[in-house]
Amino acid sequence: MQKKPQILERHLVAQSRLFRVESFDLRFSNGVERTYERLVPGGNGAVMVVALLDDEHVALIREYGGGIEDYTLTLPKGAIDLGESLRDACNRELQEEIGFGAHEFVYLKKLSLSPSYMSGGIDVVFARNLYPSQLEGDEPEPLELVPWKLAELHELYGRADCTEGRAIAALALAQEYLAGRFQGEVLEP
Amino acid sequence: MQKKPQILERHLVAQSRLFRVESFDLRFSNGVERTYERLVPGGNGAVMVVALLDDEHVALIREYGGGIEDYTLTLPKGAIDLGESLRDACNRELQEEIGFGAHEFVYLKKLSLSPSYMSGGIDVVFARNLYPSQLEGDEPEPLELVPWKLAELHELYGRADCTEGRAIAALALAQEYLAGRFQGEVLEP
Repeated sequence: MQKKPQILERHLVAQSRLFRVESFDLRFSNGVERTYERLVPGGNGAVMVVALLDDEHVALIREYGGGIEDYTLTLPKGAIDLGESLRDACNRELQEEIGFGAHEFVYLKKLSLSPSYMSGGIDVVFARNLYPSQLEGDEPEPLELVPWKLAELHELYGRADCTEGRAIAALALAQEYLAGRFQGEVLEP
Repeated sequence: MQKKPQILERHLVAQSRLFRVESFDLRFSNGVERTYERLVPGGNGAVMVVALLDDEHVALIREYGGGIEDYTLTLPKGAIDLGESLRDACNRELQEEIGFGAHEFVYLKKLSLSPSYMSGGIDVVFARNLYPSQLEGDEPEPLELVPWKLAELHELYGRADCTEGRAIAALALAQEYLAGRFQGEVLEP
């Protein structure tokens, strides 16, 4: 494994309501120096949930994405509240976004958005044994629940309104988990 | 399909060397108004390449990620130069990052990073029929080429140094393409 670059100096260069940009000077082990910029997230992290509605269907949501200015098919997800456990955050987001809670949660992996330019990550959790339960979320309009067959995820990937890399990665991880090729960690209540 | 929200006003709220943050006011079809922020990328887009070294191995790189301040296993990728075709960008990045060019390129999909907060995307391209050829890139240190067995991608996903959502998504798309379940589009020279 290579020796990590030395961080010489870092400072905040831009900030808005939601985003913070940090600049930092690095010296690599071969002596080369570079200035990098990265996004630093606020908050307490975020979760993305792959929830099985039954043995054959996963829960997708259709929601408006302000970044791409269009509706998109993706997975339930959201920010973790201050002091909230990972499991509680997942169960709250499911109840807010698809109208179900779950009895079983399995931690799969922390995914990074862009390792080169962002320090943030999202925790991917698998959920099943769902029960109907609705919580009021902060969505500007109700989200549409779209059940999708696990056996037909390749057709989802081919759709123009399914674009989010993290969601496709999370679904692939869940498939590997269900096939017994990927180790998860049960989240106890 | 739902009617898209109306965009009432937008303006630049923060800017650094690499990042631009835009704020915009939206009115949803149910009358609810919200202020959103999103990252707007500069440049001409970016490519990520799933390249087969032979029938069994895909080309990974180990590189330093400034965002996560650590080395990470991911796919060759980079920005498209002004006026450069998608195919030429992929072939240049492969030569700079793994020391191979390719004779065959197949377009798979444009992946979004975060549909909620970022307008940018990355074009995922599959490549094979490689030939040795090295080009000088702008990397601060040489990247390490790591061949990985296609049959053992689930072990890659389980590694702590493989975190990038888009890379895992791109590998899953390539697997579906190779299995004949996902349609690609050959990029002609």
